[in-house]
Amino acid sequence: MKRDIDRLMAERNLDAAVVRGSTLDSPTVYYLTGGEKLEGVTILLRPGRPGLLIHHPMERDGAALTGMETALTTQWDTRRIASELQCDLLTAQAEQLRRILADHGVRGRVGFYGHGEIGQAHALLSRLEQVLQPEVQVVVEYEKDLFSTARITKDPREIQAMRDVAQRSDRVVAALVDMLSSRPVSNGSKGSKGYLLAADGQPLTVRHVKQFIHEQCVKQGLEQPGGNIFSLGADAGVPHNAGNPDDVLELGKAIIFDFFPRPVGGGYFHDMTRTWCLDHAPQMVEQAYQDTMAVFKLIMETLEVGKLTSIYQNITCKYYEALNYPTILSTPGTQVGYVHGLAHGLGLEVHEAPSFYAYESNTAVVERGSVFTVEPGLYFPERGYGVRIEDVVYCDEAGAFHSLTPFPKDLVLPVRR
Amino acid sequence: MKRDIDRLMAERNLDAAVVRGSTLDSPTVYYLTGGEKLEGVTILLRPGRPGLLIHHPMERDGAALTGMETALTTQWDTRRIASELQCDLLTAQAEQLRRILADHGVRGRVGFYGHGEIGQAHALLSRLEQVLQPEVQVVVEYEKDLFSTARITKDPREIQAMRDVAQRSDRVVAALVDMLSSRPVSNGSKGSKGYLLAADGQPLTVRHVKQFIHEQCVKQGLEQPGGNIFSLGADAGVPHNAGNPDDVLELGKAIIFDFFPRPVGGGYFHDMTRTWCLDHAPQMVEQAYQDTMAVFKLIMETLEVGKLTSIYQNITCKYYEALNYPTILSTPGTQVGYVHGLAHGLGLEVHEAPSFYAYESNTAVVERGSVFTVEPGLYFPERGYGVRIEDVVYCDEAGAFHSLTPFPKDLVLPVRR
Repeated sequence: MKRDIDRLMAERNLDAAVVRGSTLDSPTVYYLTGGEKLEGVTILLRPGRPGLLIHHPMERDGAALTGMETALTTQWDTRRIASELQCDLLTAQAEQLRRILADHGVRGRVGFYGHGEIGQAHALLSRLEQVLQPEVQVVVEYEKDLFSTARITKDPREIQAMRDVAQRSDRVVAALVDMLSSRPVSNGSKGSKGYLLAADGQPLTVRHVKQFIHEQCVKQGLEQPGGNIFSLGADAGVPHNAGNPDDVLELGKAIIFDFFPRPVGGGYFHDMTRTWCLDHAPQMVEQAYQDTMAVFKLIMETLEVGKLTSIYQNITCKYYEALNYPTILSTPGTQVGYVHGLAHGLGLEVHEAPSFYAYESNTAVVERGSVFTVEPGLYFPERGYGVRIEDVVYCDEAGAFHSLTPFPKDLVLPVRR
Repeated sequence: MKRDIDRLMAERNLDAAVVRGSTLDSPTVYYLTGGEKLEGVTILLRPGRPGLLIHHPMERDGAALTGMETALTTQWDTRRIASELQCDLLTAQAEQLRRILADHGVRGRVGFYGHGEIGQAHALLSRLEQVLQPEVQVVVEYEKDLFSTARITKDPREIQAMRDVAQRSDRVVAALVDMLSSRPVSNGSKGSKGYLLAADGQPLTVRHVKQFIHEQCVKQGLEQPGGNIFSLGADAGVPHNAGNPDDVLELGKAIIFDFFPRPVGGGYFHDMTRTWCLDHAPQMVEQAYQDTMAVFKLIMETLEVGKLTSIYQNITCKYYEALNYPTILSTPGTQVGYVHGLAHGLGLEVHEAPSFYAYESNTAVVERGSVFTVEPGLYFPERGYGVRIEDVVYCDEAGAFHSLTPFPKDLVLPVRR
């Protein structure tokens, strides 16, 4: 969490950190500024001192709301520098950063973070390596960097925000289930050919459902920057298939609904998945679902602070393999059976640290204060179904695990008869 | 436009280009893939050949919809490479890209593009500079790069998309004006103390207005990833102040509404601004508004293909200065008067190339097929107002300029009496 940043800088022998970007594209900028919309800022962090936010004058009202110390970019205007030195924008940008660091007496190892165009980032940081020496050494991190590490654990204010988005998500899903359960069913349908009807008497489609979810999100002040997954049958057998808008909601077909909204304008995400069959579930789907529920419960019971996250991916694979399902452990690259990771950290990004993948270099452990998903699933696109169950789990300071996703996990949704 | 990519590669002596990222965070990935949601892809472009999309198996359905040639990342799995070489993820990632290029016979100068964490980008590209030589030279661009240059001009399909989002934006603004004009006004109000009333008889606030805009966006299938600006009085005097949710809509107060939505899920942006006073406009605001309308018309009449974009910023400054307003040309760093650039390119980003700023190294010219804003404005936070007028302008293939923003530019909005 934020209070760990000084310690994490010390562990990396950093004398300062520079973060560049906008709140809209850099979760780290958002994290440090508290979410006021800011474009193209530079943040200077030094251990034991408040962060300095360097911003354009047009952004001064938003900058003031962050509570950070502030300075104006115009004090080190790149265009003025470019005129003064008769140089290109890259040279001027590097010189701007050199002056900012020099004017604040920064020396030693300085880490650079933020989001941007990768070619520009490489050009600028390569140039900085030349122009900042010998006073300043440019440091970059590839894995487990300062901020993704800090962000793994959440402080009480962040947990409150995550509980809030969880509750609002729950209300959207509840409204969706109410809607699906109250739609009329096509005439004479008994068995797999029956389907839900829209208000105009035409078949209810995935397009209708997505519009309904969107409207419910608006009511709850939620947005879905990555859309959602509402996929039927064979589409549910491909984990990232978002669903075919023209598909009709047939009774008995497997539905995967994966919902990962955040508050409008930015903030902490929720991420939950439910698998449903309307009216009744085919035996194959029921079996895969029960096996996946068993894995889900097993993981929830075995989670323990300090254990390697990769252990839980291995437990999941081993459990599924004992039931004769192929997994990516037994059959690398399989597109059938258990084909993905068990879990991922959740916060200002839908996928953030820690990873739960079972590769050798993954040394992440389960931490107090962390929030992550648990999402076992089975996929059989050729047989026309997939199942997945996903809750968000919070590990409190006492090391107890809590699901933040209260919505029931019934496979079969009754329909109107 | 896309058909220029081979030529732009040739101008840069590039033998290939590699683009990495997700459709959600990289406009270039979105541009090349056509908008299907894809995460963590690598795109390989070689002149005269169809693009190759390398994607995770989970994304195979979305990848197939792009119409590109495809390959699976699992063919060059970084975790397998990491096990095989007993190396860290950075080394494995660099080796993955080396193998991808080698397996496709790519040699020579290869440009790297896309969006990501800047420290990771620098670490990876620095490593690639070592491991790819002598077969491949890593090329990066800081300014006017291949894809931002290609994206300046839009093809007919893109123009159609931009017209479509313009029309939907127009409908949202029309609904907003209808709503504001039909609200009851507080009792006995004659002059500046009157204000609009909400349905519950309480004052209508900026919060209500933003909720209304949000609901209208939903109806039109629009989203506002950067929010909007609906700022009153002194807040309108600071260009990027988004507006205070608690502010009451007083008659006679300057309102700046800057609206920059895109279709839900991604795509081309619209970007328009109107300045309004409810019921009546104070003389100072009226004067600033008329002067800004005059600049707006002057620019629309003088736009010409092939001229430097910076000319129009200078024309704007000179015109305002002749009327005794301070500008950033006469008074660098001013926060009063004309304080920003006249215009910017518009497309998959709200701010993209070309820049219209009047700095020396800006050699951008007005191009056929380009789409950009025109947005003069004046700001007087101490006097309690600001004004701005913004349309989106399209330069067609014949060199004629068309506003894509039909909404009327009346300063005064009548209220219900």
